[in-house]
Amino acid sequence: MGKGRVEAFTDGVVAIIITIMVLELKVPHGEDLSALAPLWPIFFSYVLSFINVGIYWNNLHNMFHTVQRVDGRVLWANLNLLFWLSLIPATTAFMGENHFAPIPVAVYGVDLALCGVAYRILVTKLHHLHGNETAFAKALGSDRKGKISVALYTAAVLLTFVNQWIGVAIYVLVAAIWFVPDTRFSRVIEK
Amino acid sequence: MGKGRVEAFTDGVVAIIITIMVLELKVPHGEDLSALAPLWPIFFSYVLSFINVGIYWNNLHNMFHTVQRVDGRVLWANLNLLFWLSLIPATTAFMGENHFAPIPVAVYGVDLALCGVAYRILVTKLHHLHGNETAFAKALGSDRKGKISVALYTAAVLLTFVNQWIGVAIYVLVAAIWFVPDTRFSRVIEK
Amino acid sequence: MGKGRVEAFTDGVVAIIITIMVLELKVPHGEDLSALAPLWPIFFSYVLSFINVGIYWNNLHNMFHTVQRVDGRVLWANLNLLFWLSLIPATTAFMGENHFAPIPVAVYGVDLALCGVAYRILVTKLHHLHGNETAFAKALGSDRKGKISVALYTAAVLLTFVNQWIGVAIYVLVAAIWFVPDTRFSRVIEK
Amino acid sequence: MGKGRVEAFTDGVVAIIITIMVLELKVPHGEDLSALAPLWPIFFSYVLSFINVGIYWNNLHNMFHTVQRVDGRVLWANLNLLFWLSLIPATTAFMGENHFAPIPVAVYGVDLALCGVAYRILVTKLHHLHGNETAFAKALGSDRKGKISVALYTAAVLLTFVNQWIGVAIYVLVAAIWFVPDTRFSRVIEK
Repeated sequence: MGKGRVEAFTDGVVAIIITIMVLELKVPHGEDLSALAPLWPIFFSYVLSFINVGIYWNNLHNMFHTVQRVDGRVLWANLNLLFWLSLIPATTAFMGENHFAPIPVAVYGVDLALCGVAYRILVTKLHHLHGNETAFAKALGSDRKGKISVALYTAAVLLTFVNQWIGVAIYVLVAAIWFVPDTRFSRVIEK
Repeated sequence: MGKGRVEAFTDGVVAIIITIMVLELKVPHGEDLSALAPLWPIFFSYVLSFINVGIYWNNLHNMFHTVQRVDGRVLWANLNLLFWLSLIPATTAFMGENHFAPIPVAVYGVDLALCGVAYRILVTKLHHLHGNETAFAKALGSDRKGKISVALYTAAVLLTFVNQWIGVAIYVLVAAIWFVPDTRFSRVIEK
Repeated sequence: MGKGRVEAFTDGVVAIIITIMVLELKVPHGEDLSALAPLWPIFFSYVLSFINVGIYWNNLHNMFHTVQRVDGRVLWANLNLLFWLSLIPATTAFMGENHFAPIPVAVYGVDLALCGVAYRILVTKLHHLHGNETAFAKALGSDRKGKISVALYTAAVLLTFVNQWIGVAIYVLVAAIWFVPDTRFSRVIEK
Repeated sequence: MGKGRVEAFTDGVVAIIITIMVLELKVPHGEDLSALAPLWPIFFSYVLSFINVGIYWNNLHNMFHTVQRVDGRVLWANLNLLFWLSLIPATTAFMGENHFAPIPVAVYGVDLALCGVAYRILVTKLHHLHGNETAFAKALGSDRKGKISVALYTAAVLLTFVNQWIGVAIYVLVAAIWFVPDTRFSRVIEK
């Protein structure tokens, strides 16, 4: 089964997610700068989520490069990832509109953690399908970055109840770790 | 007439449907967990619809693999399926926001039944176009699964007026039947 | 300049237009059938617009088959068509939510007429680019159907002020004329 | 790393941006022409943004023609451009709904200026990646048009505080400059 349509569908869903988030940026009422000021938490959470979804697109883009085939399990593991990604516009708005109150920050982190788990499941299914001696498996390695991300998100959710800004700081930290594109896969491509 | 653009257009519409459903997950007012509790019926109906639309994408993906050509009738049969699928975000929200009251549950089932009928019409038109001795026709067989689904949805709509949870249970059951990807088509592909 | 990306972009915009229209189908408040009854004008206008946009996609699909190249003028003529098509969700909702009152019905017709004019401009630019002795020009012929549609829409807008149902009836009539896919282009393809 | 998927993703996001803008065209309440009159500033700002986004699509379309490869920096420079473009629906609505009051007009101009800067960054990264003796670098030249646009947008934002219509006039002027498709790239293609 070819990977082309899965890639195209995934790109389509990610393109829509990254764009409809902006619909949450409701137009402020009022025509002076003071009308824009209360928007900063919504804007900041939008920027953070745009970068996070951009990172997923980037990594999926690189990862699918070394993928050779997909099966039914991979399709559903991919849809599972898209499901948790599709919740990001809603959890982003929940966090932004409540001005980074602890519970919404934790809910946002739970969503990111589940995206991370879903990404881990997807690469595991692909690893299983491709076997150990393939370009995919070599590029993936032990997926240390993926495991650390899930651990950091879990810690962030818990620490949110101490102080929500610790949670937010960890979300920014994980984004920074991944912002560097996943060179494992691109290194293999260049070889 | 090539099938490429029909596939791409279908994928695009399905990607949009599956993603805009989440726009119905309105951001809760309030910043503690009790603000999230009333969302569970909306969330549950979203999950059910995400899986249902995912199943359609999966089956269309497998089915178009064995399709060799399309004509004007197939284009319109496909648009007819997309029409009923495009109503799913609205019927999902209607069911979720009314906390699975009988009428909204029945309306949701009517939409699913009509999606099933539209899928049956589409495969029938494709069968007609390809003839009996083709990979498509062999993969399709008697389409028992498609016929059973329509029958089960019809039963579910009627039984909703006895107790709506019977209807919901049948929707989950049909999703479970289809969740296993349509191996008829993938079996032929592997041969 | 290749036509591939223009086709893909056009398909993408049309797929989004046809799908976001359904966002105007606001979820009714209330959980019995009487809550659905007031939706019929919105639903009917949605069905009509779904068919109209479906017709445009179908005809663009067939037309681009015989197109060999595009230039800057064609890109803008195409964007012009997409602009008027992108207004259809808004004019559809305006007509449906005002229960087919004369002015909204006329506004809807003005949009359809301008879509028709934009389609005429697009085929004229393509005709100019391809010349007379090409498959495109032969398939297009005198574009009688395109000219008649614009005339009928103009008549419909004017007759709306006599009785709006005359306008609606003409919109249905033009849709019926085009529903038969534009066999001019498909005939050439088959040759 | 191939440019195909970056092009497709970019087209997808731009197609969504250009189409969801129309969702800001809220259906007027009331069924006569006086209900439409207050919409003119919203409609005019929508037309201006549709043309601006159309120009970006057109130029990206021509530019990617001469691009031979992309790397991680280009992907992020492209996402950065898409980010500022994705804010256009919100800034357009802000400007239109406040009837071209000075601050919203300035905010709209800041967004356009940042889109221009992001476009400059993207072509600079691509220039860096391709080197001086390539079709891309020759087509780009000194990118005088890009530099002038950013300067004009900056002037427009400042002059808005003298009179907002000066700002609006400059936005229309820059759109007119770019409306002529970026012949630098298409000239190279034709050679």
